[in-house]
Amino acid sequence: MNVSFFQELLNSIAERGRLLLERSPDGVGGGALQELASALLSGRGEASGVALAGEILSVYRRAEDSEKIEFFRYLLDELRPDQDKIAAAAQAYLVVATSKTLTELETAVVSPRQEFFRRLNLAPGATGCIVAMRADLIALLPQAPELAPVDADLMHLLGSWFNRGFLVLRRIDWSTSASTLEKIIEYEAVHEIRGWEDLRRRLDPADRRCFGFFHPSLVDEPLIFVEVALTSEIPGSIQELLTAERETEAVTNPETPTTAVFYSISNCQKGLQGISFGNFLIKQVAEDLAKEIPSLKTYVTLSPAPRFAAWLVRTTNEDAPGPDDAETLTLLEDPSWAAHAQQHESLNQFLIPLAAEYFLKAKTSYGKPVDPVARFHLGNGARLERINWLGDKSAKGLRQSHGIMVNYLYDLKDIESNHEAYINEGVITASKSVRSLLKSADKSKNNKKRKEVEMPENATVEVNE
Amino acid sequence: MNVSFFQELLNSIAERGRLLLERSPDGVGGGALQELASALLSGRGEASGVALAGEILSVYRRAEDSEKIEFFRYLLDELRPDQDKIAAAAQAYLVVATSKTLTELETAVVSPRQEFFRRLNLAPGATGCIVAMRADLIALLPQAPELAPVDADLMHLLGSWFNRGFLVLRRIDWSTSASTLEKIIEYEAVHEIRGWEDLRRRLDPADRRCFGFFHPSLVDEPLIFVEVALTSEIPGSIQELLTAERETEAVTNPETPTTAVFYSISNCQKGLQGISFGNFLIKQVAEDLAKEIPSLKTYVTLSPAPRFAAWLVRTTNEDAPGPDDAETLTLLEDPSWAAHAQQHESLNQFLIPLAAEYFLKAKTSYGKPVDPVARFHLGNGARLERINWLGDKSAKGLRQSHGIMVNYLYDLKDIESNHEAYINEGVITASKSVRSLLKSADKSKNNKKRKEVEMPENATVEVNE
Amino acid sequence: MNVSFFQELLNSIAERGRLLLERSPDGVGGGALQELASALLSGRGEASGVALAGEILSVYRRAEDSEKIEFFRYLLDELRPDQDKIAAAAQAYLVVATSKTLTELETAVVSPRQEFFRRLNLAPGATGCIVAMRADLIALLPQAPELAPVDADLMHLLGSWFNRGFLVLRRIDWSTSASTLEKIIEYEAVHEIRGWEDLRRRLDPADRRCFGFFHPSLVDEPLIFVEVALTSEIPGSIQELLTAERETEAVTNPETPTTAVFYSISNCQKGLQGISFGNFLIKQVAEDLAKEIPSLKTYVTLSPAPRFAAWLVRTTNEDAPGPDDAETLTLLEDPSWAAHAQQHESLNQFLIPLAAEYFLKAKTSYGKPVDPVARFHLGNGARLERINWLGDKSAKGLRQSHGIMVNYLYDLKDIESNHEAYINEGVITASKSVRSLLKSADKSKNNKKRKEVEMPENATVEVNE
Amino acid sequence: MNVSFFQELLNSIAERGRLLLERSPDGVGGGALQELASALLSGRGEASGVALAGEILSVYRRAEDSEKIEFFRYLLDELRPDQDKIAAAAQAYLVVATSKTLTELETAVVSPRQEFFRRLNLAPGATGCIVAMRADLIALLPQAPELAPVDADLMHLLGSWFNRGFLVLRRIDWSTSASTLEKIIEYEAVHEIRGWEDLRRRLDPADRRCFGFFHPSLVDEPLIFVEVALTSEIPGSIQELLTAERETEAVTNPETPTTAVFYSISNCQKGLQGISFGNFLIKQVAEDLAKEIPSLKTYVTLSPAPRFAAWLVRTTNEDAPGPDDAETLTLLEDPSWAAHAQQHESLNQFLIPLAAEYFLKAKTSYGKPVDPVARFHLGNGARLERINWLGDKSAKGLRQSHGIMVNYLYDLKDIESNHEAYINEGVITASKSVRSLLKSADKSKNNKKRKEVEMPENATVEVNE
Repeated sequence: MNVSFFQELLNSIAERGRLLLERSPDGVGGGALQELASALLSGRGEASGVALAGEILSVYRRAEDSEKIEFFRYLLDELRPDQDKIAAAAQAYLVVATSKTLTELETAVVSPRQEFFRRLNLAPGATGCIVAMRADLIALLPQAPELAPVDADLMHLLGSWFNRGFLVLRRIDWSTSASTLEKIIEYEAVHEIRGWEDLRRRLDPADRRCFGFFHPSLVDEPLIFVEVALTSEIPGSIQELLTAERETEAVTNPETPTTAVFYSISNCQKGLQGISFGNFLIKQVAEDLAKEIPSLKTYVTLSPAPRFAAWLVRTTNEDAPGPDDAETLTLLEDPSWAAHAQQHESLNQFLIPLAAEYFLKAKTSYGKPVDPVARFHLGNGARLERINWLGDKSAKGLRQSHGIMVNYLYDLKDIESNHEAYINEGVITASKSVRSLLKSADKSKNNKKRKEVEMPENATVEVNE
Repeated sequence: MNVSFFQELLNSIAERGRLLLERSPDGVGGGALQELASALLSGRGEASGVALAGEILSVYRRAEDSEKIEFFRYLLDELRPDQDKIAAAAQAYLVVATSKTLTELETAVVSPRQEFFRRLNLAPGATGCIVAMRADLIALLPQAPELAPVDADLMHLLGSWFNRGFLVLRRIDWSTSASTLEKIIEYEAVHEIRGWEDLRRRLDPADRRCFGFFHPSLVDEPLIFVEVALTSEIPGSIQELLTAERETEAVTNPETPTTAVFYSISNCQKGLQGISFGNFLIKQVAEDLAKEIPSLKTYVTLSPAPRFAAWLVRTTNEDAPGPDDAETLTLLEDPSWAAHAQQHESLNQFLIPLAAEYFLKAKTSYGKPVDPVARFHLGNGARLERINWLGDKSAKGLRQSHGIMVNYLYDLKDIESNHEAYINEGVITASKSVRSLLKSADKSKNNKKRKEVEMPENATVEVNE
Repeated sequence: MNVSFFQELLNSIAERGRLLLERSPDGVGGGALQELASALLSGRGEASGVALAGEILSVYRRAEDSEKIEFFRYLLDELRPDQDKIAAAAQAYLVVATSKTLTELETAVVSPRQEFFRRLNLAPGATGCIVAMRADLIALLPQAPELAPVDADLMHLLGSWFNRGFLVLRRIDWSTSASTLEKIIEYEAVHEIRGWEDLRRRLDPADRRCFGFFHPSLVDEPLIFVEVALTSEIPGSIQELLTAERETEAVTNPETPTTAVFYSISNCQKGLQGISFGNFLIKQVAEDLAKEIPSLKTYVTLSPAPRFAAWLVRTTNEDAPGPDDAETLTLLEDPSWAAHAQQHESLNQFLIPLAAEYFLKAKTSYGKPVDPVARFHLGNGARLERINWLGDKSAKGLRQSHGIMVNYLYDLKDIESNHEAYINEGVITASKSVRSLLKSADKSKNNKKRKEVEMPENATVEVNE
Repeated sequence: MNVSFFQELLNSIAERGRLLLERSPDGVGGGALQELASALLSGRGEASGVALAGEILSVYRRAEDSEKIEFFRYLLDELRPDQDKIAAAAQAYLVVATSKTLTELETAVVSPRQEFFRRLNLAPGATGCIVAMRADLIALLPQAPELAPVDADLMHLLGSWFNRGFLVLRRIDWSTSASTLEKIIEYEAVHEIRGWEDLRRRLDPADRRCFGFFHPSLVDEPLIFVEVALTSEIPGSIQELLTAERETEAVTNPETPTTAVFYSISNCQKGLQGISFGNFLIKQVAEDLAKEIPSLKTYVTLSPAPRFAAWLVRTTNEDAPGPDDAETLTLLEDPSWAAHAQQHESLNQFLIPLAAEYFLKAKTSYGKPVDPVARFHLGNGARLERINWLGDKSAKGLRQSHGIMVNYLYDLKDIESNHEAYINEGVITASKSVRSLLKSADKSKNNKKRKEVEMPENATVEVNE
């Protein structure tokens, strides 16, 4: 019986990998990965790159955290650009800046790690493994911050590979494969999906949609997905949107919808942190929906306000409490207050103006809105349209934002100017009604009591809204 | 009737593109592309990148050569890294080389052109357009060599995007789409395909195969393809392999084949010049064939010797002609000699030892074999197995190589060592029989008459063997 | 805005359907279906068949049971062959039997219902609706047995349409669509699947397989499916096979399997009752598995004995009970006996010989084995290989068969002769060990006490084994 | 190495087939097919039907015509219904006509050939072979007309299998597989396609379309296809429509089309003769085009008049020639007349009224229009819209119809009533302008001279218009 020559080649290289493992008293970390990585960048890598790359990934998968750190340190220390060459090229450039000296300087500074990862990508299924490798690295960074340059190289490469031009928008529905759907359940970051029946309620009804971006090399793995409800008006409550008790008629024969509501966007791949897809996803989905459903006129989100409660605590000025502050905040401490909210209309009048201040006035040290979801949508050119009282009565919603949810409106004719005003001048575009809340807040006495604090802005936090 | 909001957005941007065009007295080149490119890299590009990128590609397609050069010059001059920043970063690095100063230097030297092309790739179908753009640029380089840095950036980016890990191997046969097949006819660079019936003879019979690499973003466009014949022995003549008069029985019920013959490899995309796929293609196809057809034992090429005739002329030493040189070379001047070759056995004895010398001893200024196809296969780790007399009687074959063809053998157990010996020491691995030709050549007097000349090595010529 | 001309056509016909509905005081049943059916068979059906067929299906779906019966009665009474024509053709044939008089008789007896259903199939998605229509009809037959000829016509047509040559074998695994998978959960008729995690355990592990037959017109709907375990020996217990506590290693890296175990076959479509696919499915799956996994040597089932307990009761001869019968049967009345079965070895010795008798000697009124699963596999040419004590400890298994399960072996070289011996002479092929159980049973005294009763054979019960 | 058990089974049956062949002194016809056919209907067929069916098809493919006739005779004589049983059932039915005696009569008359062909369809790829088998049979019928009952059974079965509900409409364009496209070239029955470039002109331009019906079991084989041009008016000349010299602009950027012109419909499968798809194809394509291109308002054909010249000859009344008949007909004898047609305006005035008579008054012996294409479109409910002078200047067009072409218009609101008027009363719906031609013809003297002859109507000729 024939054994493929090339199968043998693969085997022989795998064999060597195993020998290296056995030789090393300290297991994988004792050098196997390093030796293989070195071989991949050598002449051998040119002849047998596919097999070597496959073997590296196979050994890596079985490695312990400590061995992974050792491997990343090897990449950091050994696969870095040659300092002497850089210095020589830098000096030559400083003597005379020509196209030639610039090219030489560019060449000198490029990290051999990039070529290493490019060759690593030769192995079947490697792209997904490299994304997972970066997820590992990100998790290890707090304990090994010196590895940041390795992460920078990985992010640079992945940013190039996962360019939006290579992504494919796919609808995700009940005819999608179970292996993809279970990832939707797992990755949903905003409003938890409780099992397959809950999932079906978000995908299957005639007035629900879900779309994701996929990369051709990560077949079943969504990169980011958005859940959409088709409605006849802008909704204010996530629980009403997701209730299991919707009338069957509405589910199977929805009225002609006028409004597409983006109520959840989740990034899926930790290893692609910092590479942004959400902006493209929303616009592409809006465009496709407009073609499919001519009756749609309004594209809007139903979004959380994840740092509202935290901001409220930090800015509470104990020295100048308002007349009813103490009582009001005490009410909020009882987690069941939302269940009989109608008894507490005062909370509404207390919180909503504060929410307006949180969105329109509170700033991070970078001068951006405190709310990360706001930063995302305003950065996309959307407008803060409405602040909804009791929009999210879930435990998480009450804890993070005292139940507040907001709508961001994507209005074509303003997207570009909103975006530029936001980027260049920090302008937060909001509807009249939201702005008027702030005015009334300014007039009220509650507002005067806020402490001036700067909220931190964690640049790497992904927006899952 | 509904007009998609986002369609409107696209239209409005296209409109502006048109206005720019009209405004500019000099047509497209007068600034439209440049203005759009500048916008793409600005904040507007973040909000409306997809539309802007599409418009740039649309304007570019209609541009004249002179306008394209102007556009590339804009990329060269305006989208280059900031010289002052580079100088500052270079100086800081020379003062102290840390991870931080290195990162800053890396950032400073990166050309904004790369980000420009990455954003350009946002438009639907952009990847193919960018490949075509580089093909334009390569064609313009001779008249505008200063554009080389733009080409370098494009090549860097395309090399990353067209990483072998993203390519898909697909069989090309008679059930492939006509739009792909017509490209096979067009791109075949070695043994011309004369129409659809000729094509069918290479794809459809049970003992023929064709495989290509495809990229997910260039759906119908092969990047490179290889044609394979399944035989029971190593063939020496391309005409016998491709004859239209093969017995039907052999075509539909081939004997169990032992030998896979790679008789033609063609690169398809001028815009991917310098990005090598051939090595991977041969090895992947060999692996897949081995799985499909267990009887295969031998993987071999039937390859041209494209510079043999040129080398022969340049190295002919008129001062010391051999006794029968003059007569022999006169014979070759008659293009019909091959038709009655059996009458000219002397030619065989004259040319074959010279061919051995051409392959084994003649070197370029870089110390590599003169023959570009030899450089390709020896670089892959193959062995020069056999030199075939009258292997290609076509006009092109006679003109380029006096009809000589060779076989390169891919033998698993030696690929890696062959490759390393070739790369590190310039060793040309050849079979005993080929080496013995050289010995007999060394002993004959013809050989002593060769002039010592250095043949040029055109680094950018693609191997189409 | 353009409204498709043909959409208008559809609408106008739907409109008429609605008018008919409104006109009729008795709702749908009051004639709408009948009028539409009559139109479909008329000249109008030739011009607008697709639209009329669609409208019939749409009205049918909303009909009540009583209206459906009325509709089927219309098909029975009005769309029957013309009695006078039959009589004339029959007389002509009796006068002289020629090719011509035969053709005329054939034409006269063909029911117009067949043409009706063929035209009904013009509507998009009609095939699935017609299958569902027959499921309705089968459910109504007990209360309207006179409709049997309509059922016969439907079954004749569906048998032709669902010819095995048109079926596609597809693997069902974790990358299959959720809409198909939920049907697997729903249709599994033998060993209940308890939710998605249980399903995954049957599809996803490396040593599990599931295959189904699909029809091109019923995209997501399996017709029949079989679940397979790949093992290293013939298993005797379904609980051991399906346990959730299998070692991970075995699941992801199974030893090279030698045995393919068909442990569940389920028919999915009630409307295809009487049209048999199981025989083809088992043989096709065995063939495909043999190609994929060369180490497989044995193809065997793990099957229930669904009527064993019932047979035991009916044949118990109260007049001549054996010494320990009473006590033994009392043990079985405690449903928890199987949990501590090792304490009741006597049950094993009591039941197993009776099971041998049940399989090898007990006959229906048609002279076939009492056990329907046995009839299925023996009819396929399989051999009764082994009787397993405590093979199924589930409540259903204990209730139906006191926990007995059996293996049927599919051995190539004997399939055809086994089948012929079974069909022609009623021979039940069994292994030596099973036959020896019978001999020991014959010698024991228990056996003499069986009553001679004839068990009924429900010809239309589908085998879900 | 493992040989699939079931592969062995197939081999063993193939072996027997071969033995039968060898045994029989008269080759295949000497009984091998008959023995295998008999086995397929026996108990063995139940156990090993797939293998037996495959073997029959394999032997059949190698059989000579004489052996095929012998095989069909076997089907005729041996696999016919049992005469005694029919007689008994007929008598029972005549005694009393009940549901039971009818069912028994139905069962008795059904030909075992139908079950034979159903089992034959078990083999992989059988459906296509059975279609080809019927094509053979149709070709043999003239020399063996007694085989008509076998053909009737095959047609009955294929009509059921190729029900429109199972057909798939697919667009055929330049991205379709070469293996399908070469069939389009081969099967085009109306306006010959001269090679691949000609084909591309019909498929690739933005204002051209081609659609075909496919059956899931005949993957690459179209059953029927239609070629469509999108225009801004109803065209009168096929040469203008198909010219290779169309302006590029029109080809790539057509004006918004208002008219879909069906200018060629070709049936592809001789073995499906008598099973009509054209009606469904036109209506489905019209519906799909209306959705894709909202600007379309008119659906019309450009059709030949294939029997016009023949009718003209047969009805010429030599006894009463008009004043200019002789001269006019002499002109037509010169095949180059159409090249300088403008010199012969008299021909126009002579022929067009005769064409109106040909379409509106000439009848077959069945009372239908003489023109088969007219029968097809009028039967579909279309209207004869226009008669075009010099519509087809090809040799075939001049020979068959003196260059006349016509347009049939498909107008939604009239399709059903046109169809019914045509079927029930023989009404030929025509536009006012066509009818007025007839009136003027009635008044002219030419018309009075026509002989009254009945044209034959070949019921089995397929419409390729």
